[in-house]
Amino acid sequence: MSAAGSLCVVGVGPAGPQWQTPETAAALERATDLVGYGPYVDRVRGEGQRRHVSDNREELARARQALDLAGAGGRVAVVSGGDPGVFAMAAAVMEALDGDADGRWAGVDVTVLPGVSAMQAVAARIGAPLGNDFCVLSLSDNLKPWAAIERRIRLAAEADFAMAFYNPVSRARPWQLGAALDALRDVRAAATPVVLGTAVGRGEQERIHVTTLAGVDPAEADMRTLVLVGASTTRVMERGGRTWVYTPRQYRPEAT
Amino acid sequence: MSAAGSLCVVGVGPAGPQWQTPETAAALERATDLVGYGPYVDRVRGEGQRRHVSDNREELARARQALDLAGAGGRVAVVSGGDPGVFAMAAAVMEALDGDADGRWAGVDVTVLPGVSAMQAVAARIGAPLGNDFCVLSLSDNLKPWAAIERRIRLAAEADFAMAFYNPVSRARPWQLGAALDALRDVRAAATPVVLGTAVGRGEQERIHVTTLAGVDPAEADMRTLVLVGASTTRVMERGGRTWVYTPRQYRPEAT
Repeated sequence: MSAAGSLCVVGVGPAGPQWQTPETAAALERATDLVGYGPYVDRVRGEGQRRHVSDNREELARARQALDLAGAGGRVAVVSGGDPGVFAMAAAVMEALDGDADGRWAGVDVTVLPGVSAMQAVAARIGAPLGNDFCVLSLSDNLKPWAAIERRIRLAAEADFAMAFYNPVSRARPWQLGAALDALRDVRAAATPVVLGTAVGRGEQERIHVTTLAGVDPAEADMRTLVLVGASTTRVMERGGRTWVYTPRQYRPEAT
Repeated sequence: MSAAGSLCVVGVGPAGPQWQTPETAAALERATDLVGYGPYVDRVRGEGQRRHVSDNREELARARQALDLAGAGGRVAVVSGGDPGVFAMAAAVMEALDGDADGRWAGVDVTVLPGVSAMQAVAARIGAPLGNDFCVLSLSDNLKPWAAIERRIRLAAEADFAMAFYNPVSRARPWQLGAALDALRDVRAAATPVVLGTAVGRGEQERIHVTTLAGVDPAEADMRTLVLVGASTTRVMERGGRTWVYTPRQYRPEAT
């Protein structure tokens, strides 16, 4: 039996190499094995690594496979999009480790590296919508009950956070974004800015739409969309034909 | 009068160059002028750029200075730590632009680039504490009333978000972190994991302390500290002499 190797959980950023950190690039270069969802693994350049691709929903199985490869001596990189710590593979790897009752992966050296997440790429493109307090939710109810998601959204709306929604829709989950927006409309003003950022950083595919809580059409979002919702203080500014959205650092709500 | 130049708002990451994106590095290399808080500007390598450093509190004045330099034809980089969109200079630049009633900066080409923020660096070091829904607050009451911050914290606690606290303490603000933790204790269990990450990424200065809501001592935090608070589902795992903290992807709260 060979000595145990290492497992490094990385994120390749929301799009091209411009947002991948040097630390992550170096870890990918050192890796003997890449494990991840196909489209993310495809974004890793290099020819020396064995590539183990799997389907999007198989996160825990993928984490275990990666730990097995590392346990057998590999230098394994688990490849997420964005930041691996934000709705991505770092939590799945931790869950797998936590379930390792018989210590089969005890010798594996595990690290997690931070990355740029999609909300940050979209926010930067449009200005500074997350420039004050904000919250971050996944709208996927595959692993949590919708009632819990909606409750969080209502409380976050009352708290007047700006918000970032990951996984707003998929083919299997067509109604969740509409339901989230409906919950917001009970609390937030109709004029609240909403930003739909789709495929940000992917050249001609990129679309950014600035709209409002009253005007937003959930059908405009797809699996590549990140949704930002403003706080009561978030402002929209037109300047030289371009639209900016930002949340000022100062917070003096009219009524708290 | 020279043609207007450009202003790019960048973040150099929470610490060394390992977390700085290639996009940001390229923008810094192209810049003729660097504008920012001294310690951040000091982290930019290169000798060709004019350096304009200012004090930490002077964000709006710094944004205006940067826009003036760009208006005069400079290629100006406004340098934040971390991600410029998260409690940093992007919002201040937007505020300055929004106040530009006479259009003196109308010709300036403005961009914002995303970066890795401190919460992500701390989260990665300790596992995946932000692996499910979370919120992000600054505890500085320089620009918002403490009552509004505390209200947000209480609602976020009710919503069972994991939390990241920026600016937990400073010399001028010694009591805010203690007050925030007191507010949390009214709602969250005593055993809730709390992570204090100080100077993460800065070699031997780095300290990470995993404790609980009952056990945390606010005096351990300083200006370089990022505080993470778990959700009800956040777990602490001991493994091979190392402590990991993560929030599972699955969310089945015992009582919502």
